[in-house]
Amino acid sequence: MKAYLDCFPCFMRQALEAARMATTDVARQREVLNRVAQFLPTVTVDATPVDIGQTVHRLVRKITGVADPYRAVKKRSNDIGLRLYPELTARVTAADDPLLAAIKIAGAGNIIDFGPKVAADPDEVERMIPDAFARALHDPIDMLEYRAFQDRLSAVNEILYLGDNAGEVVCDKILIEQLVARGKAVTFVARGAPIINDATVDDARYVGLDKIAAVITNGSDAPGTWLDDCSPEFKEAFRSAHLIISKGQGNFEGLSGVDAPIFFLFKAKCPVIALEADVALGTVVLRQQVLEKATK
Amino acid sequence: MKAYLDCFPCFMRQALEAARMATTDVARQREVLNRVAQFLPTVTVDATPVDIGQTVHRLVRKITGVADPYRAVKKRSNDIGLRLYPELTARVTAADDPLLAAIKIAGAGNIIDFGPKVAADPDEVERMIPDAFARALHDPIDMLEYRAFQDRLSAVNEILYLGDNAGEVVCDKILIEQLVARGKAVTFVARGAPIINDATVDDARYVGLDKIAAVITNGSDAPGTWLDDCSPEFKEAFRSAHLIISKGQGNFEGLSGVDAPIFFLFKAKCPVIALEADVALGTVVLRQQVLEKATK
Repeated sequence: MKAYLDCFPCFMRQALEAARMATTDVARQREVLNRVAQFLPTVTVDATPVDIGQTVHRLVRKITGVADPYRAVKKRSNDIGLRLYPELTARVTAADDPLLAAIKIAGAGNIIDFGPKVAADPDEVERMIPDAFARALHDPIDMLEYRAFQDRLSAVNEILYLGDNAGEVVCDKILIEQLVARGKAVTFVARGAPIINDATVDDARYVGLDKIAAVITNGSDAPGTWLDDCSPEFKEAFRSAHLIISKGQGNFEGLSGVDAPIFFLFKAKCPVIALEADVALGTVVLRQQVLEKATK
Repeated sequence: MKAYLDCFPCFMRQALEAARMATTDVARQREVLNRVAQFLPTVTVDATPVDIGQTVHRLVRKITGVADPYRAVKKRSNDIGLRLYPELTARVTAADDPLLAAIKIAGAGNIIDFGPKVAADPDEVERMIPDAFARALHDPIDMLEYRAFQDRLSAVNEILYLGDNAGEVVCDKILIEQLVARGKAVTFVARGAPIINDATVDDARYVGLDKIAAVITNGSDAPGTWLDDCSPEFKEAFRSAHLIISKGQGNFEGLSGVDAPIFFLFKAKCPVIALEADVALGTVVLRQQVLEKATK
């Protein structure tokens, strides 16, 4: 999807939050804002939030000299996830339909996202987590989409699972366990380098995803899957996949126009994404990629 | 007060909202964002939100060619205020302390503000109004500040009342009626030209403030009282005043370091103002200007 004008102020906010994660030097934080402000007018009308976000956060890292501003936040999110893991797994196991419950848990886990303005700070995000799970388990998922997912699932042996954020990877693990229990081989895709609080291979390993799935990277430091920027290896895996589970807003932003057998699973946390997906803010969305073909 | 770095993303958002009020032409809206983005890196470290806001909204008006983007919103806010006027007046009259109740009403009326991010749109602000009044009438005002205000009030015959927003002027009228009933002569100060939804002389007259008070302008199109930018006539009135009631965040931003007999009255609607005033977000604040004198 293309960026909305609403994304421009939001990138300034993101840049400031990331700069504050990286340094307490206010002059350096101001320099980040200045450089992002100078960059924004050069953004072309067909740019996506994913490629703009990549440049914005590269600027943050370059100007502050901090390679991974969200490192501590990611560790903390993973630890929160691991602490919740036994209870969430028990809820899934006890559910009438454990696969559906695991999808809801994985979708709700997408609340742990420091790109969009979810909350004032990581503390507040942490406080929102229990409610996000309670709400997700209570709220309905579109059953037509879920049936379509089940149909596709029964027809494949391998699944490409595009991860999104640290912390959330624990919820992904819970869903992947359900997939593995159904005899599927899952490849989990992490980002190629630190970007906001997105999950890297380190995060996937930290929560033990490598014990149940192959873990690869997409070779990119964009905050979402932007195919042009991904490694040839990932692109090959993507092109040959028969079922792709795409987690989170960033992957939706990057892949919403791409012809591939994708099911998107995310929590709509910003007004622009809610508008684009035509759902109420805060909804957990499971949705099959359907493209209107102009020709062929 | 000086601008915080948080103000920079916020000005981008304000510019976009104002541009959308002025025009449906997305290319023109984008041009506004670009010009504001180019301006922000030139802002000096001692700039206040008031002088930055003046430039930002001048850019909006210049690029869109619309002299008063919030004209319709201001009219609507005034009409909402006038519709509520009988009920609010009745509440004040029935209160144990009508002056205190009128102060609370005037403070709560400061919710009708389209500078800070109060809500998604004017419709949502409108929906928030009843709750803002209910909360303000219920919440305590700092009684030490109120006693200080009463003391100062009893010592003066004339009051300079710095208005803030359209719609809110109806609440100002309710407080000014209480002041007039106590034998005080009130001069109400409107902005010198349209800026966001701030009250101009037209708004003051529309709600009948000119029937009970002298109505003047400060000669400035800044979204707050920035003395350097005000007319000589207003500055003279300001300097000779013995009691100044300063409504709203913008006037607080512009006058927080100025040595004058000011009582600020505003609703803290943005995190930066809440931090600066050391109150919880959403609090209605009555506060006497107290400056620490370095010498003398």
